Amino acid sequence: MEGEKKEYCGLFGIFGHPDAVHLTYMGLYALQHRGQESAGICSSDGRTLQHHRGMGLVGKVFTPEILEELKNPAAIGHVRYSTTGSSNVNNAQPLVVSYARGQVAIAHNGNLVNGASLRRDYEAHGSIFQTTSDSEVIAHIMAKPSHIEKDNPIQHCLNHIKGAYSLLIQTPKALVAARDPQGFRPLCMGELEGATVFASESCALDLVGARFVREIEPGEAVTVTSDGVTAMRFCESAEIAPAHCIFEHIYFSRPDSRIFGDTVHETRKKLGRLLAQRHPVDADVVISIPDSGNSAAVGFSEESGIPLDRGFIKNNYVGRTFIQPFQGQRDASVRIKLNVVQDVIRGKRVVVVDDSIVRGTTQKAISKILKAAGATERHLRITSPPHVSPCYYGIDFPTADELIAANNSVEEIRRHLNVDSLGYLTVEDLHASVSRPGNHYCSACFDGNYPVPIDGKLDKYVMERY
Amino acid sequence: MEGEKKEYCGLFGIFGHPDAVHLTYMGLYALQHRGQESAGICSSDGRTLQHHRGMGLVGKVFTPEILEELKNPAAIGHVRYSTTGSSNVNNAQPLVVSYARGQVAIAHNGNLVNGASLRRDYEAHGSIFQTTSDSEVIAHIMAKPSHIEKDNPIQHCLNHIKGAYSLLIQTPKALVAARDPQGFRPLCMGELEGATVFASESCALDLVGARFVREIEPGEAVTVTSDGVTAMRFCESAEIAPAHCIFEHIYFSRPDSRIFGDTVHETRKKLGRLLAQRHPVDADVVISIPDSGNSAAVGFSEESGIPLDRGFIKNNYVGRTFIQPFQGQRDASVRIKLNVVQDVIRGKRVVVVDDSIVRGTTQKAISKILKAAGATERHLRITSPPHVSPCYYGIDFPTADELIAANNSVEEIRRHLNVDSLGYLTVEDLHASVSRPGNHYCSACFDGNYPVPIDGKLDKYVMERY
Amino acid sequence: MEGEKKEYCGLFGIFGHPDAVHLTYMGLYALQHRGQESAGICSSDGRTLQHHRGMGLVGKVFTPEILEELKNPAAIGHVRYSTTGSSNVNNAQPLVVSYARGQVAIAHNGNLVNGASLRRDYEAHGSIFQTTSDSEVIAHIMAKPSHIEKDNPIQHCLNHIKGAYSLLIQTPKALVAARDPQGFRPLCMGELEGATVFASESCALDLVGARFVREIEPGEAVTVTSDGVTAMRFCESAEIAPAHCIFEHIYFSRPDSRIFGDTVHETRKKLGRLLAQRHPVDADVVISIPDSGNSAAVGFSEESGIPLDRGFIKNNYVGRTFIQPFQGQRDASVRIKLNVVQDVIRGKRVVVVDDSIVRGTTQKAISKILKAAGATERHLRITSPPHVSPCYYGIDFPTADELIAANNSVEEIRRHLNVDSLGYLTVEDLHASVSRPGNHYCSACFDGNYPVPIDGKLDKYVMERY
Amino acid sequence: MEGEKKEYCGLFGIFGHPDAVHLTYMGLYALQHRGQESAGICSSDGRTLQHHRGMGLVGKVFTPEILEELKNPAAIGHVRYSTTGSSNVNNAQPLVVSYARGQVAIAHNGNLVNGASLRRDYEAHGSIFQTTSDSEVIAHIMAKPSHIEKDNPIQHCLNHIKGAYSLLIQTPKALVAARDPQGFRPLCMGELEGATVFASESCALDLVGARFVREIEPGEAVTVTSDGVTAMRFCESAEIAPAHCIFEHIYFSRPDSRIFGDTVHETRKKLGRLLAQRHPVDADVVISIPDSGNSAAVGFSEESGIPLDRGFIKNNYVGRTFIQPFQGQRDASVRIKLNVVQDVIRGKRVVVVDDSIVRGTTQKAISKILKAAGATERHLRITSPPHVSPCYYGIDFPTADELIAANNSVEEIRRHLNVDSLGYLTVEDLHASVSRPGNHYCSACFDGNYPVPIDGKLDKYVMERY
Repeated sequence: MEGEKKEYCGLFGIFGHPDAVHLTYMGLYALQHRGQESAGICSSDGRTLQHHRGMGLVGKVFTPEILEELKNPAAIGHVRYSTTGSSNVNNAQPLVVSYARGQVAIAHNGNLVNGASLRRDYEAHGSIFQTTSDSEVIAHIMAKPSHIEKDNPIQHCLNHIKGAYSLLIQTPKALVAARDPQGFRPLCMGELEGATVFASESCALDLVGARFVREIEPGEAVTVTSDGVTAMRFCESAEIAPAHCIFEHIYFSRPDSRIFGDTVHETRKKLGRLLAQRHPVDADVVISIPDSGNSAAVGFSEESGIPLDRGFIKNNYVGRTFIQPFQGQRDASVRIKLNVVQDVIRGKRVVVVDDSIVRGTTQKAISKILKAAGATERHLRITSPPHVSPCYYGIDFPTADELIAANNSVEEIRRHLNVDSLGYLTVEDLHASVSRPGNHYCSACFDGNYPVPIDGKLDKYVMERY
Repeated sequence: MEGEKKEYCGLFGIFGHPDAVHLTYMGLYALQHRGQESAGICSSDGRTLQHHRGMGLVGKVFTPEILEELKNPAAIGHVRYSTTGSSNVNNAQPLVVSYARGQVAIAHNGNLVNGASLRRDYEAHGSIFQTTSDSEVIAHIMAKPSHIEKDNPIQHCLNHIKGAYSLLIQTPKALVAARDPQGFRPLCMGELEGATVFASESCALDLVGARFVREIEPGEAVTVTSDGVTAMRFCESAEIAPAHCIFEHIYFSRPDSRIFGDTVHETRKKLGRLLAQRHPVDADVVISIPDSGNSAAVGFSEESGIPLDRGFIKNNYVGRTFIQPFQGQRDASVRIKLNVVQDVIRGKRVVVVDDSIVRGTTQKAISKILKAAGATERHLRITSPPHVSPCYYGIDFPTADELIAANNSVEEIRRHLNVDSLGYLTVEDLHASVSRPGNHYCSACFDGNYPVPIDGKLDKYVMERY
Repeated sequence: MEGEKKEYCGLFGIFGHPDAVHLTYMGLYALQHRGQESAGICSSDGRTLQHHRGMGLVGKVFTPEILEELKNPAAIGHVRYSTTGSSNVNNAQPLVVSYARGQVAIAHNGNLVNGASLRRDYEAHGSIFQTTSDSEVIAHIMAKPSHIEKDNPIQHCLNHIKGAYSLLIQTPKALVAARDPQGFRPLCMGELEGATVFASESCALDLVGARFVREIEPGEAVTVTSDGVTAMRFCESAEIAPAHCIFEHIYFSRPDSRIFGDTVHETRKKLGRLLAQRHPVDADVVISIPDSGNSAAVGFSEESGIPLDRGFIKNNYVGRTFIQPFQGQRDASVRIKLNVVQDVIRGKRVVVVDDSIVRGTTQKAISKILKAAGATERHLRITSPPHVSPCYYGIDFPTADELIAANNSVEEIRRHLNVDSLGYLTVEDLHASVSRPGNHYCSACFDGNYPVPIDGKLDKYVMERY
Repeated sequence: MEGEKKEYCGLFGIFGHPDAVHLTYMGLYALQHRGQESAGICSSDGRTLQHHRGMGLVGKVFTPEILEELKNPAAIGHVRYSTTGSSNVNNAQPLVVSYARGQVAIAHNGNLVNGASLRRDYEAHGSIFQTTSDSEVIAHIMAKPSHIEKDNPIQHCLNHIKGAYSLLIQTPKALVAARDPQGFRPLCMGELEGATVFASESCALDLVGARFVREIEPGEAVTVTSDGVTAMRFCESAEIAPAHCIFEHIYFSRPDSRIFGDTVHETRKKLGRLLAQRHPVDADVVISIPDSGNSAAVGFSEESGIPLDRGFIKNNYVGRTFIQPFQGQRDASVRIKLNVVQDVIRGKRVVVVDDSIVRGTTQKAISKILKAAGATERHLRITSPPHVSPCYYGIDFPTADELIAANNSVEEIRRHLNVDSLGYLTVEDLHASVSRPGNHYCSACFDGNYPVPIDGKLDKYVMERY
């Protein structure tokens, strides 16, 4: 169920195509699920950068006129979830600045764990900051005179930042795609009619008709200019183990995307099958909470032999503008999004597959709705382990205080949700569902093992307090 | 696949509830799939009517301030698909007029076959028309002095109109719900905390928490005042056989709605099962075109034993504002909405379940996308018969010239779509999937048998030509 | 000082010019002072009418795209002051309806005194009403079968309505301009490159570059078709004496307009001269309340020999959106519009020329501001008699209860406003300032002599109560 | 006549008033003439700064909700004329940044002549720039560690910048108002209920009801904190002669403002009187081009004895949205703004008073309009010398190539404008009209004597080329 966890960003870039800006617009449409609060595109004509950014969905921010004005053969785009109000269009990306070497645009997905300390350092040396985004920190690093002089200044700079980052960096003549040494966030490369394309998820390559080439490797920076494509490692793979965000598979990425070497839909089906093995139950029907439980429910049904059906219908028209009803209309915010199909439920023992439990509010409402619809038994199956720790690498979970599993046992949660049974997966189950070694994934939100050490006082709003 | 056929309207009304206006707002949200171009609410404080209407989705037309201004214990609402431009907010409903008896508001779903001739008659007697909606014709009938004098003026007036209509009529002191003698369009009645509720589909009752009581009968008018609820038949059931629109089950209504005595989702599953019986095929996977083929695909999979999977992922953010890409990006309008999950398709013999074929454009694009994704065989299964005739009762199909099945054999269509096999249902199959007698449904769009005779020159734009 | 009295409308029309729509747009700009709440244009291609209407200023309602869509060789336009909320775009004009003879568009300036009773009659005969505008009443009259059959149906219909009306009526093939027998509201005719132009005020002719030809006579209807221009009287001038609204000269019309045979600016200068004769005063400087007192102050200065200066500067950027300040910022709504030039005032005996006193609120604030600026004496001169009666012919004055002069003597008003002297004109003075005979003007708001009898219960909101 | 010369900015600030934000909103309304393209307010609660900025007029950028959110006892505001498109809300001010000392907001009116070179220096030392405004340069200077350590860091920083600047600088605990050593742009201080107020022009003090205290001296910085007001000179008056922008008196400032020790209205009247002395003419009427010629025309009339009248009426509703008419409607952009009052002009020898001639386009159109209106003679009088040089201190004149007086003699201009006589003032006349010594004013645009040396390659778009 959407709404309780938020990703910060989605990236798209293309170099060497006459329709680069329109293709970026389409690519952002495909990545809209990664950020709905602002969108931006920066393009280059080979000499200068132009950009447009705004609050809201891609379809609202861009008009045909704006796309036409930006029209150039190279472009990068960004969609973002922003934590603050409308006045903060400043925080929209790509961030476009000028420095000693000219213009540069930066689009970032992830969260730096040393962003705040770097900011303090730079401020101490006289820098000013106009946004609360990590991109601005990166821009300052790039502009530092001693860094500019390096043979490979961008790669050099990347060694100064720690944490999660997939980056697109654009100068008038080049486009660079880079990924942190742990490879927390996805970033892939494609090819379209001779042009090089980059995207957070492969679904965006599919939409524009680009061929998937490969992922950007953790610790790698790929540079495209009119002279061609050059790949370079700024951090050797031997030094640092990958730590792909396993939650991208469980929830964030689109099912039709291929990330970290697996297709998300297939991974979720495997999670569903494992759930059926770990927590078998005698039931009449398997249903999912759309859309996040859809893929896993297919796997659960296949493995258990219990028929799959559609117990909830999603309202496709619910947007940000829904006016909350009067006091007393309880569960309205869930019910406006999901309506139960009573014939599927009535008199049935129902297995409900969902991706995770954050606060438990949604699941409690759903349990109640199913009871009212006549379910004789309600069995909740979750395709992840209990969610106990915050994320410092780019996902906006509620604080630990609000995470129900951080403060309650599984049995307590079951009783709270008022379901007949509740089954989670283990971290090992997650590892068994993906094709790379288990220690190549980050599952800190489930086990507290943070692959990149974090400052004890760090919290997600650290930058906003400035 | 959405987009080629359009319903005209959705209705919601409630009498006797302090939050009538907010509940109507919620009800319209649940019915938004029935009309996305304008929305309106009219409410009564017992003495006068207030209303607000606007172009766009419910969530855009109404603000908290507007809902607050309208706040009254009785309300009716309407969502509409309008065929003309932004300047025609005039055509938005409910239509609110004053006449000799005071104010009246009318919300209409359907299409009158004698609307144009009635309009000519009234114009000949001096009436003026400001809109092209049937509601205005109905208002004129109601205002006619000889009609006003009748004991039951509204019921009397209803005998003058022919065709498809589900109606909500509001005066300062009463709310009337009526349905044409054939019962073309759905309309049901519910109860919420003592208040009487009406809605085009039961999903709207579910959302506001109302209990489903029953359908308004064909030829029945139900009146609610502060004195209670009175039902009256204005046309005896013996006289006219029902002619429920079977296409409501196939495509229009939401799967979680109960209409014409059946739950739409269950009906569609039966259609899917019948398809599997009529057109069996040896295949590896069943997929649906979301959302319209979703329910039927469940039935097809159950009956055939071929596993169900999700071959297409829908983009939830595609709205009206998508800027069509440059020339040469073919199939972009389909691809922006649906992305294929290649792992589900690659190397597979695929059964694709869809609800109907109108022009064939979408299905041809899908066939091509599946081939590119590596499907070894493509078998298209349609949960309706070939679509050969226009609808005069409220659905905006393309003209017969554009209906591919009106001009081509099934084999020709199969070749055009470039699929390995193509299977339709028959009208008899449709009848076998619903619980009422087959002759109680209208299937004119499939067989040309029009239950209410239509003027040979009638077409759907007849009113707009004025 | 603007803001306390409101005119209902401004009209512009042109027949036979390729740029008719754009010229109408410009004409409405010139007439914007006559109505700021809605605007509309209807155009004809010779076969059908197209129209667009919206809430707000002309510059907001129309875009280049809309003007392009409407582009046709004949057009009429309307600006309106509307008494009710945003949902009432229905009341925007031109009203466009279809009736037995086809389409007709009506734009109206004025107020019918028998509009409500005609409405009751038509309702009694079965008509419905969707707006509260007099235009709709006129449309019903035009559509009446017995009227249609007349040789000159429009002229025939005009004999049924009483009160103030300047009208533009457009059919696909013709444009008619008509004016009530008393000629309450102005309406003139011009010529531009062979096309016939109509406008409420001549300033609109000037703007589009049209030559002023003449006024439409009271009781005259001028029809333009592709066959040429035909003028016809529907009421003989011998029968009814003209009753031009003298307040158009005092306040409403633009100074650069020529109405009722006089240029407004010159008339106002004469009023100023008369004021100086009637109420001489020994003073140091004459200032005006911009913009309404500007012209008269020139005359007062010329006659009195007291130097004219600019004591107040108007803020050109104050629009509808000004957020009223917190409690305690008194007179802020006056001060935001007018700022005093202290050097002009300090230590001076000041004569202030304004057009009229309605509630007295503005003048009281101004008196206080002048005192604070250091004026040693304040002498208020008003270019009209005390305002004591409501207007039933199209001006939205406050009710008599709120008219300060209806309930107080001049001396009481002077004390209330805290000025050293206060001088009004008499109705005879008004007559002496215009070139037509005094009995050819309506001065009912000053003397209660209503040229067209009014129903005792009539008030300006009578239509809105339906 | 407005439209050909643009000022960059207006400033307002207040410290120590519970309604500081609303008063700033009002103050910006009064200063709207100094910049119409963006507006912004920053406020402080004593610990952090909040701000909101947007494109458009003050009345559009701010809503009651936004004012309420910003509500704090200290605020600064800014209106700006921006040279580039809607995407550049980044350039709106106040600029709010964080640096080593915390947050700071900067609002700037003027133009630095060393802004570009400072920017190059800072970039060379690693700084990044996100806007093209001088305010960002100032922020970088303030953030430099060696500057922070100074006893009076702001004053120290001001010694690094050269050119024209009136500045408001806000930190969470203080508000600083500063003015360049030449005092190019106005900036004054007032008092309201114990709070300290700053404004570009005194008309803003008047509007909020504040008492004018004094001007900020050239080379002075005034700091307000909760401990009180401290004034300090960062540049001794003996070192640098003032160079007040004489064009503020001629055109920019509002007539009701008091700047550089004189009231603008009175200065303009003196200019008008001098014009009458220098270029006497036998004529029948004096008219002004509203609004900029209004005050001077009063003086011309007084001195010459020729009656003053209103020959042009301004359309108050012309905004940015006017759709330019079709080809062939010549002079439409002038005529939509100004309509001639023919009775004032016809058969008359007319003196027209205007403030300056930039390109001559407007005056040529006016000459033509007057001829068409029947003027027998047209005598143009300009309250400034011929305009021959660009401004580097904050006014956006066209380039020298476009300045008609830079390339033509007075006689050539007269013939081009087709007027009977043309009279300018001299720089000495300007000096004679103001109360401070002539060498205390900058008249570089008339004589090319630039008080602060400028780099030969400097042009007004130098910052935008980055």
